Amino acid sequence: MRAFLIGRWQPFHKGHLEIIKKISAEVDEIIVGIGSCQKSHTLTDPFTAGERMMMITKTLENYDINYYAIPIIDIDYNAVWVSSVESLTPPFTTIYTGNSLVRELFSERNYVVKKPELYNRTDYSGTKIRKKMLDGSAWEHLVPEEVVKVIEEIDGINRIRRLSEKDYDEE
Amino acid sequence: MRAFLIGRWQPFHKGHLEIIKKISAEVDEIIVGIGSCQKSHTLTDPFTAGERMMMITKTLENYDINYYAIPIIDIDYNAVWVSSVESLTPPFTTIYTGNSLVRELFSERNYVVKKPELYNRTDYSGTKIRKKMLDGSAWEHLVPEEVVKVIEEIDGINRIRRLSEKDYDEE
Amino acid sequence: MRAFLIGRWQPFHKGHLEIIKKISAEVDEIIVGIGSCQKSHTLTDPFTAGERMMMITKTLENYDINYYAIPIIDIDYNAVWVSSVESLTPPFTTIYTGNSLVRELFSERNYVVKKPELYNRTDYSGTKIRKKMLDGSAWEHLVPEEVVKVIEEIDGINRIRRLSEKDYDEE
Amino acid sequence: MRAFLIGRWQPFHKGHLEIIKKISAEVDEIIVGIGSCQKSHTLTDPFTAGERMMMITKTLENYDINYYAIPIIDIDYNAVWVSSVESLTPPFTTIYTGNSLVRELFSERNYVVKKPELYNRTDYSGTKIRKKMLDGSAWEHLVPEEVVKVIEEIDGINRIRRLSEKDYDEE
Amino acid sequence: MRAFLIGRWQPFHKGHLEIIKKISAEVDEIIVGIGSCQKSHTLTDPFTAGERMMMITKTLENYDINYYAIPIIDIDYNAVWVSSVESLTPPFTTIYTGNSLVRELFSERNYVVKKPELYNRTDYSGTKIRKKMLDGSAWEHLVPEEVVKVIEEIDGINRIRRLSEKDYDEE
Amino acid sequence: MRAFLIGRWQPFHKGHLEIIKKISAEVDEIIVGIGSCQKSHTLTDPFTAGERMMMITKTLENYDINYYAIPIIDIDYNAVWVSSVESLTPPFTTIYTGNSLVRELFSERNYVVKKPELYNRTDYSGTKIRKKMLDGSAWEHLVPEEVVKVIEEIDGINRIRRLSEKDYDEE
Repeated sequence: MRAFLIGRWQPFHKGHLEIIKKISAEVDEIIVGIGSCQKSHTLTDPFTAGERMMMITKTLENYDINYYAIPIIDIDYNAVWVSSVESLTPPFTTIYTGNSLVRELFSERNYVVKKPELYNRTDYSGTKIRKKMLDGSAWEHLVPEEVVKVIEEIDGINRIRRLSEKDYDEE
Repeated sequence: MRAFLIGRWQPFHKGHLEIIKKISAEVDEIIVGIGSCQKSHTLTDPFTAGERMMMITKTLENYDINYYAIPIIDIDYNAVWVSSVESLTPPFTTIYTGNSLVRELFSERNYVVKKPELYNRTDYSGTKIRKKMLDGSAWEHLVPEEVVKVIEEIDGINRIRRLSEKDYDEE
Repeated sequence: MRAFLIGRWQPFHKGHLEIIKKISAEVDEIIVGIGSCQKSHTLTDPFTAGERMMMITKTLENYDINYYAIPIIDIDYNAVWVSSVESLTPPFTTIYTGNSLVRELFSERNYVVKKPELYNRTDYSGTKIRKKMLDGSAWEHLVPEEVVKVIEEIDGINRIRRLSEKDYDEE
Repeated sequence: MRAFLIGRWQPFHKGHLEIIKKISAEVDEIIVGIGSCQKSHTLTDPFTAGERMMMITKTLENYDINYYAIPIIDIDYNAVWVSSVESLTPPFTTIYTGNSLVRELFSERNYVVKKPELYNRTDYSGTKIRKKMLDGSAWEHLVPEEVVKVIEEIDGINRIRRLSEKDYDEE
Repeated sequence: MRAFLIGRWQPFHKGHLEIIKKISAEVDEIIVGIGSCQKSHTLTDPFTAGERMMMITKTLENYDINYYAIPIIDIDYNAVWVSSVESLTPPFTTIYTGNSLVRELFSERNYVVKKPELYNRTDYSGTKIRKKMLDGSAWEHLVPEEVVKVIEEIDGINRIRRLSEKDYDEE
Repeated sequence: MRAFLIGRWQPFHKGHLEIIKKISAEVDEIIVGIGSCQKSHTLTDPFTAGERMMMITKTLENYDINYYAIPIIDIDYNAVWVSSVESLTPPFTTIYTGNSLVRELFSERNYVVKKPELYNRTDYSGTKIRKKMLDGSAWEHLVPEEVVKVIEEIDGINRIRRLSEKDYDEE
């Protein structure tokens, strides 16, 4: 059995890793969709799809998990989004998601929809981690070690800080 | 004389029907544009263009009205929108709209722009009807009988309720 | 039972009308898709979607046929095309098509696919009719009377002739 | 040395002119990018790219400035935006911008990024000028004389006022 | 009076220059549209819009011609193309074109359409010049001196030669 | 060192596998781009990106190769294509390609461009293999065993045969 799990992974953190480990124990193969793959360089979506792909791959190669990591573009047309996902992924029967729109779209196409079991949501939150990156708090313990390395390789913290500088608008 | 009337029809209700009946008394043929046709499966735009097309067609076939129902895609480029509408519709000279942007765009292209006469706006409002669908109040008396049937056929009320479920976000 | 029939209708001719009459005898409602709806003003696709909509509607209102006429945009992404059609149309279970790609795409989505019964293909052919329009031969007897009127209203024959003028290219 | 300066120029005002005059004293050629070129007919972006092109060209032809004015389309894909700009402009090495996203995107591509020196920001502000246009205050002294003429030619003030009319929504 | 002239200018040659000089003698301002602006790096369209913009601007600044040079994107939707051009350009009333589709589209919108007077078409042809660039024949005398400089600055001849190398396909 | 190799993999065959094995011996990680990812269901591009992803992943998991498999969408805008690839992939410095356009685009961005060493091009050719699939010849020995399984799972041979059926066009 194959299952699909979609997220934005901005960045990929230990809570994400726990979800994937739990799901992978229940399925043969897990497809990790990298959502909003065309987004990057904003405070909410700082990392490119390629950078997020690297975070996930580097982390998961330390585990015995059968997975695919696949970038998924946003298309602003809900009624065709499931077909678009299907064309980019191996066939799957189950989707894990906490998002009501995604749940509805896949339910109407007769997929089995499950909610992933979250892990320590208080600490492991993309929003909180991005905030720590910005204000100089420690964030490294909240993500896998390999993710720290990727963010260093791409100088990610400085990108986020520069993006947060106040505009000085010539308008 | 042909006239154009655009709306989102989420859903098509009795106020809409009255507007169309009044306009059709003044013109030879009325073109009913189904706006934002690519939108569906959100709380504001729950129904697909095909579902809205069915609501309108099933209702209007009970009246002696010469009409066309035509899906119109949003294009995020105001300066070409009128041309896009023109390419999808029979030629027309008059547009009925209450929206200031639509009015301006068609005025600059020398169309006659009129405001449709609304009918009991207090009861007949898409926003209010969608809210009633969500919270379990009676809504059926506010739309034509055929629209009730269409929404039943597509299980529309459950769609809206599922879309409103609180997200449980793995972010 | 609802069935879907897609064509380009450049222009809508008597062969098309016969196909629709035959299918409508077998189904409750027929959905007439106006394919390549964004195309116009070429020798192969001279008429806009709106003009073709008018040809179909004016003709069919003389017959007791339950139909929808719906413009369908080409999207250069085969794997999502069925979903796109589904979002623009009322639900249907059967598709009539002679095109192998369309047949395959709908078959993989479990639709019933049938071939429409053609009618006097020697005379009734869009390609041949457009050629006659261009070279000044009689074409009017090959299309329904209402189509002749539409083409006159939009000065369609002159459009085709002007489009065929030899380029005089400043390249 | 060539430099790039991007703005929306809604409308082009005297503060903009001063910025361009200062930059052009430092560089051989200045490329004036007309951002969000597909936007028009809203209260925030009332003028088309062509209208803004005319404002800039008519004004700058009175000065001895080597410039290019080039419309730049928004593309909702930050990671490719620099390439898109590069394909539309002559090669340049320096960009003047006060916007943190633009600064970051060009910095990552090794451009020299500078902040333009603003000029009397209190008076010369697009937002304030559009507000004056709307409420009938004097705005003409805040823009170059040629811009006044362009706005008259296109009846721009009436466009803004009509766009601000309250909607009377048939929804 | 303003006139519009569209071309691909791959590259801008002396025949083009003569056309522009002749038209500019008849009109107040000429708008030079740079067509297919998104195309580059092929044997038929080797130069980017920015490079072609530079060729035209550098050449025309030696003449007393009132012009605008404006990149125009191809949009695969004939019925809205005129509107798209209108939004990117100052208002104009006359278009010079030898292309039958462009002629038809602007004629239907009530523009005055004229054919530009070509100049020594035997020598001055983009196709022939690109062929000479490829096979090492002299081409420099066929384009304005400034165009030679631009093509040198961007190493254009080598680009064309590399693009013509035989593929060695791993397919 | 990371290298990028792009192909369409329609289907992934033993020649492809040999290329990847050779390159992976020279680099730390190889990024396998799945080109034209939006294409499927044609005789030239029968398989979806997801199906091709499965062919590659299933095959390579039998080898000790550090790789990423990443779908790459065609964008009809050569000048931004490299940026689009960069946003979807981990950073790389070398690209292996036999295609002259790809070579030129990456060369202009200062990548190291190498030609992959082909392996028995006579037998291992996507075009030839698709032809064998169509006419019933043996093809299974030309692709990795896992690819045979994937094509069976998706009933790929029948898809190709159905797509090749003669059209019976109602046009």
